[in-house]
Amino acid sequence: MTLLKCLLLYVFFTSLLLGSSASKARHHKWDVEYVYWKPDCLEGVVIGINGQFPGPTIWAKAGDTVVVELKNKLTTEGVVIHWHGIRQLGTPWADGTAAISQCAINPGQTFEYRFKVDKPGTYFYHGHYGMQRSAGLYGSLIVDVADGNKEPFKYDGEFNFLLSDWWHQSISAQEVGLSSIPFRWIVDIDQWERAIQLLDRSKVHEGMNTCGKMASPQCRPEVLQVLPNKTYRLRIASSTALASLNLAIGGHKMVVVEADGNYVQPFTVIDMDIYSGESYSVLFTTDQNPSSNYWISIGVRGRLPNTQPAIAILNYRPNTPSKIPSSAPPVTPAWNDYAHSKSFSYKIFALNGSPKPPSVSNRRVSLLNTQTKNANALSGNVSEIHPWHLHGHDFGFWALRFVADNPGVWAFHCHIEPHLHMGMGVIFTEGVERVGNIPKDALSCGVDATIVTNGTRHP
Amino acid sequence: MTLLKCLLLYVFFTSLLLGSSASKARHHKWDVEYVYWKPDCLEGVVIGINGQFPGPTIWAKAGDTVVVELKNKLTTEGVVIHWHGIRQLGTPWADGTAAISQCAINPGQTFEYRFKVDKPGTYFYHGHYGMQRSAGLYGSLIVDVADGNKEPFKYDGEFNFLLSDWWHQSISAQEVGLSSIPFRWIVDIDQWERAIQLLDRSKVHEGMNTCGKMASPQCRPEVLQVLPNKTYRLRIASSTALASLNLAIGGHKMVVVEADGNYVQPFTVIDMDIYSGESYSVLFTTDQNPSSNYWISIGVRGRLPNTQPAIAILNYRPNTPSKIPSSAPPVTPAWNDYAHSKSFSYKIFALNGSPKPPSVSNRRVSLLNTQTKNANALSGNVSEIHPWHLHGHDFGFWALRFVADNPGVWAFHCHIEPHLHMGMGVIFTEGVERVGNIPKDALSCGVDATIVTNGTRHP
Repeated sequence: MTLLKCLLLYVFFTSLLLGSSASKARHHKWDVEYVYWKPDCLEGVVIGINGQFPGPTIWAKAGDTVVVELKNKLTTEGVVIHWHGIRQLGTPWADGTAAISQCAINPGQTFEYRFKVDKPGTYFYHGHYGMQRSAGLYGSLIVDVADGNKEPFKYDGEFNFLLSDWWHQSISAQEVGLSSIPFRWIVDIDQWERAIQLLDRSKVHEGMNTCGKMASPQCRPEVLQVLPNKTYRLRIASSTALASLNLAIGGHKMVVVEADGNYVQPFTVIDMDIYSGESYSVLFTTDQNPSSNYWISIGVRGRLPNTQPAIAILNYRPNTPSKIPSSAPPVTPAWNDYAHSKSFSYKIFALNGSPKPPSVSNRRVSLLNTQTKNANALSGNVSEIHPWHLHGHDFGFWALRFVADNPGVWAFHCHIEPHLHMGMGVIFTEGVERVGNIPKDALSCGVDATIVTNGTRHP
Repeated sequence: MTLLKCLLLYVFFTSLLLGSSASKARHHKWDVEYVYWKPDCLEGVVIGINGQFPGPTIWAKAGDTVVVELKNKLTTEGVVIHWHGIRQLGTPWADGTAAISQCAINPGQTFEYRFKVDKPGTYFYHGHYGMQRSAGLYGSLIVDVADGNKEPFKYDGEFNFLLSDWWHQSISAQEVGLSSIPFRWIVDIDQWERAIQLLDRSKVHEGMNTCGKMASPQCRPEVLQVLPNKTYRLRIASSTALASLNLAIGGHKMVVVEADGNYVQPFTVIDMDIYSGESYSVLFTTDQNPSSNYWISIGVRGRLPNTQPAIAILNYRPNTPSKIPSSAPPVTPAWNDYAHSKSFSYKIFALNGSPKPPSVSNRRVSLLNTQTKNANALSGNVSEIHPWHLHGHDFGFWALRFVADNPGVWAFHCHIEPHLHMGMGVIFTEGVERVGNIPKDALSCGVDATIVTNGTRHP
């Protein structure tokens, strides 16, 4: 795995994003196909959108309708896109889970996703077919407050980080290993060696020194340009295949204000965990010595990392971006410091005034966590973290209760890509008799299409 | 490219294959999925059938019906199988060309191929969707004469070679390069270096010395065990992605008796060209010094090869298979000796007594061979050979005339996989109004299925 020094993907300022006054449709036209890319300066192929990796950012305001006309230009692979964190109220067929909410979109075909983004927040989208997310099929989805509404916090500028990990092995090869007997985990010895070689500290620093000059724009470290004594919002989402991460900004505290599209009671940290499938917003204030730049580190948690932390630069203007920070990169917590993880998680509470959860529940579902013969080791340098992700719903508190208020068929699964591939997931069917207006496209899958459309198969 | 020392795949004796007396159905049940394999001793993933690479051999007799119930166990890729050389008289939907004769079979779905093999001969099958043939999706299809009939030549035993080339780059990466601007051919510098390193002569010989002992059974050289003073039939087919080949058996002449499922007027050679998509049968007699073994060489033609010739051993019993031949491997012709190629081609004539071609033609189609901006170089160390393959028909003579006697939709294309991917092909639609009994499965492709089955799309 390469934990990317180039994992920090793009930056923007909301101040430039003053839109129209009414909710509207946000149209996008996407071509999905493999492209060459150098996510860690070593060229490989990724599944790109409109020739880009990661895919284009979708910006919308709460209440808008997002329309994505997706053309599958892959040669032999189907594709779907899951809009991670969007509840798809009334449009469960647009949830983008292959064989659950819709048929995969076949090569050469076009499918139109159309759904409402009802809540402001930090979201992202990603492939949800096989392990296509691990092939780089993801991008950001940012929902601002509707015109006339205000966030419950203030800031002067905004940045967006979509974090991910990157693997040199093709997803076909990864998938074979996961379903082989004997089981093979997604990284073999050769791959580790290659990743380490690529990312040894000297090279990372070399990369930093040439930032913006020699390093490829596809893999050079990200630079956040800030002015002194301002407050910035940093949106952070993680689409990692495997890695649990921790982010720290050298010398700067962060105030967590949003988690998974929900406002939280603000709390202050010097570093923060983020697991696959999660998103946060934090605020930080540029109150440090303005003559210096500062490192941002992103380290691995939950597994003994074989790569160096990814880094970015907080660039106080008018310093140059290439000015090396005077202090060392912040050190993220040890991979196995679980007390630290818990301490962070225990600080997350819904913002005062958020709707209360129902006091009673109508149904109790017990999920037994069992191990298969292909199971991962739970010892040694690995401790399995399983960031479970429930489609179509939020769950904001610890009992994993959710209100079944969204008719549809919803996946609930570990967001670690290889774990999901190995079967770590269930499906909730919820009031499906109330789902209407399903496009036939969504249910037309080759052989099965004849069953759906006329109740027969074979002539 | 690795021109495989292990490219010689399996061996059998027809003397063991005495079947029943009437034509019958030959049932096969296939699971298609990626598996680990070491085609050239370096592990990669291939598309296997029932866990095997190459896929299982289909044996049948002329007049039999072959039934293959194919389950697509690939994760995200569709799949089809083309039965190369089988004319599919009356069953054009079973020709196995994605988007031409049928929809791709989606992941998780099962499709039944059912067709008659009407002519004895040496055939093979392969994927015909994207570049899946290059991923290893192929196998042999051998049709013996019907009971009571005899071949127009005699032999004591029989062997079968399915020749191929092998690439270390994934087909996704190959495909991206072919459709990129600037264009990238399927092998980049790194890949060549790797292939050369793997296949330098010392290693090939080391491989030979340990044949059957240390070398992996997936990549050790093939051994043909023969008795002195017998005549053997060697069936040879080529499913190469790119390589044009030449085969020679040290010290032994070959009599060519079959080409592409048609008997030919026998002629004698000391080496023979074989292009992608072709098949031959040759007879050879074990009339050499029986105290020695002999090398078989397969070299590359039409491109300056970067790999050593592939080799196999002709093992005169009771010598041990590992006894090194006393003479050097036969040297196949220089890659650019085209006079030699033509000399071979000019010797191929239909067996005396074969039906004559019609004296008049009803339609003349002119195909202009144009170059695109992505075209291959036609200079330097490359001379483009284009083995054109017409589905559903034979053409046995030079004017490229064929009798339009097989209603259906038929591809006509260069059999070089990357050339086809770049668009080097056309489609002949032939009396399609006379095609009946098409399974709906064959025309049910996602979105399009709704059009086929009820004439509408979208609700």
